[in-house]
Amino acid sequence: MTRILVLGGDGYLGWPMSARLSAGGHDVLAVDNYLRRRICRETDSEPLFEVPNLLRRARRWQEVSGHRVEVRIGDLDDWAFISEVFQSFRPEAVIHFAEQPAAPYSMMDYGAARLTLMNNLGVTFNLIQAVHRFCPDCHIVKLGTMGEYGTPNIDIEEGWIDIEHKGRRDRFLYPRQAGSLYHTTKVMDTDLLWFYVRMWGLRVTDLMQGPVYGLATEETEADEALLPFLNYDEIFGTVFNRFMVQAVAGYPLTVYGKGGQTRGYLNIRDTMACVGLAVETPASKGELRIFNQFVETFSVNDIAERVARAGKALGLAVEIRSVDNPRLEKEEHYYNPAHVGLKDLGFEPYTLTDQRLGAMLERITRYKDRIRPELFLRGVKWN
Amino acid sequence: MTRILVLGGDGYLGWPMSARLSAGGHDVLAVDNYLRRRICRETDSEPLFEVPNLLRRARRWQEVSGHRVEVRIGDLDDWAFISEVFQSFRPEAVIHFAEQPAAPYSMMDYGAARLTLMNNLGVTFNLIQAVHRFCPDCHIVKLGTMGEYGTPNIDIEEGWIDIEHKGRRDRFLYPRQAGSLYHTTKVMDTDLLWFYVRMWGLRVTDLMQGPVYGLATEETEADEALLPFLNYDEIFGTVFNRFMVQAVAGYPLTVYGKGGQTRGYLNIRDTMACVGLAVETPASKGELRIFNQFVETFSVNDIAERVARAGKALGLAVEIRSVDNPRLEKEEHYYNPAHVGLKDLGFEPYTLTDQRLGAMLERITRYKDRIRPELFLRGVKWN
Repeated sequence: MTRILVLGGDGYLGWPMSARLSAGGHDVLAVDNYLRRRICRETDSEPLFEVPNLLRRARRWQEVSGHRVEVRIGDLDDWAFISEVFQSFRPEAVIHFAEQPAAPYSMMDYGAARLTLMNNLGVTFNLIQAVHRFCPDCHIVKLGTMGEYGTPNIDIEEGWIDIEHKGRRDRFLYPRQAGSLYHTTKVMDTDLLWFYVRMWGLRVTDLMQGPVYGLATEETEADEALLPFLNYDEIFGTVFNRFMVQAVAGYPLTVYGKGGQTRGYLNIRDTMACVGLAVETPASKGELRIFNQFVETFSVNDIAERVARAGKALGLAVEIRSVDNPRLEKEEHYYNPAHVGLKDLGFEPYTLTDQRLGAMLERITRYKDRIRPELFLRGVKWN
Repeated sequence: MTRILVLGGDGYLGWPMSARLSAGGHDVLAVDNYLRRRICRETDSEPLFEVPNLLRRARRWQEVSGHRVEVRIGDLDDWAFISEVFQSFRPEAVIHFAEQPAAPYSMMDYGAARLTLMNNLGVTFNLIQAVHRFCPDCHIVKLGTMGEYGTPNIDIEEGWIDIEHKGRRDRFLYPRQAGSLYHTTKVMDTDLLWFYVRMWGLRVTDLMQGPVYGLATEETEADEALLPFLNYDEIFGTVFNRFMVQAVAGYPLTVYGKGGQTRGYLNIRDTMACVGLAVETPASKGELRIFNQFVETFSVNDIAERVARAGKALGLAVEIRSVDNPRLEKEEHYYNPAHVGLKDLGFEPYTLTDQRLGAMLERITRYKDRIRPELFLRGVKWN
């Protein structure tokens, strides 16, 4: 049994991760300030179905499973709050999901950009300081993003690269250049963690995660009240979930531009498995361990075709339509990322099959009447 | 004549730069919030001699030279203030010195570290947003630091590196890993600028400057009231200036550890020349232009020996003493940084000679009675 602190424990990944870890017998404290809920409300990007607040979900989870997730609501960017949390809970591991996670939101306007930068850097900074002061042996598991690497014209390695230059050699963090301010804050998080790992001998695992899709995990699928957020709008909905909801709504799948944009995707169940493995095998003192966390690479066109095929098998009339790309990104590019570290720890991927895709579409169909098609395109422009 | 905004116009470099540019016939607005003065007061790191406030210096400069530096005091991290400054002044170029500049201060405690991170990132972010909104053609000249690169085992190129990896090629920002939180905030500044250069087509010159030494510039040397700050303490005093003051005080030159730490140094007069050249030849739209800004590489031992030799020529009894290194850094390492970009623009370095060193020591001797030896070592530890 490990004392595990989950920062951002109300989120799409934070909540099911808290449930999973408590089911695994760990002592779990989930902390959140409901920032994501507030922003969704303010931007009219409410998820497909209502999600009870974290305290209610934790209570419901205890009723159905007998496992307990302790909850605290507060702002981790506030030093008084986070230091009190660390001093009282004394975590052995901390999983850091507590960031503003929407790339389009980070590009929306001054206020949204500033909030993203200051919140994400501020919380990561406070986390580092709290670990150093109150539990220096604690393992930090940080959710990074594959988006830190961007789309370079060379193979993407797992966090590090050996460079031979003019006859000499050294090893460096793999070069990073991200495609949104949100993703850039994660580049900065890695810079900050790497600095303090070297100075203070922290133990850090930085999980460079691809876009996640899916509706539920083993622990959360049985009970409506336990499901994670399902956002399908332009701002908070990632492409896979958005396409699935569009297919159910009879709305064309909105491919941005040419649709050759390729990324490494994973199911929300894979996130549970990968983060679980990272927690079970902590990084060493003074180690920044980086894993690329995804299962399969798809282009946007691949995803549209997969969703269309699964939708048609269920009798849905699915159309694919290219729309002007609101982002500045390469629409055709080389993409060959490594991902062996988590497999070496024993990770068994939950790959996408038409059957699994069909089951997700069927579940979304239960909420068909709640879909608001005006949320699919919101006009946030990158430039 | 160019409308030039100098952010951090009260600082060691910001003030003489403002005077220089006004002498060159430019329309100069210097902005500062006196953060550096406040921190020096709070940490008992007052400079060697009193420096009149920015308004008084600008007035004195106008009396002696006839040139005008306009002054505004306010916090550039405050959007209301910076947006008003940009809307009213409409700069064609902006020089960004407005950062907490002391590496030891950034490692001192939680509050100092948090202030450094939030101030430096916050001001750079606001600057980018203000330029984009109010004068998108404005050239941003950003003071970065050679410290962003750290001390890699391969040659340091000028900002960028071509990497060939598994038979494919791409060009990246040169890998950066800094040795203090202050230097890490500059790594992050570069990440942020590079992101918005790509998104919004900004014009940016990032000057990776080495440690600066020296007491005065052409414009400021004649009048006591116009001299820049001279810090010689452990927190704000950089090694060269600190050694010169120690030599005058009859205090041993405090070499940290083995003293093999090598960096690229420049005289404060070189900063004037380099920044001036950058302003005269703006970066292109959508260009992040990076120059390595230094003149000569010295190890700490080299500097100690140079200062000792010049001191002895003036009859000073100079001793060199190794003290425990409060920093975590390599004390012996490879160091071979490129610096051709500024020379290509016509930069003529002001190299260090024994005569110039002697003249600086003589000037410091005028203030010998004001030297407080207890400021030389303050006990800020990196770990």
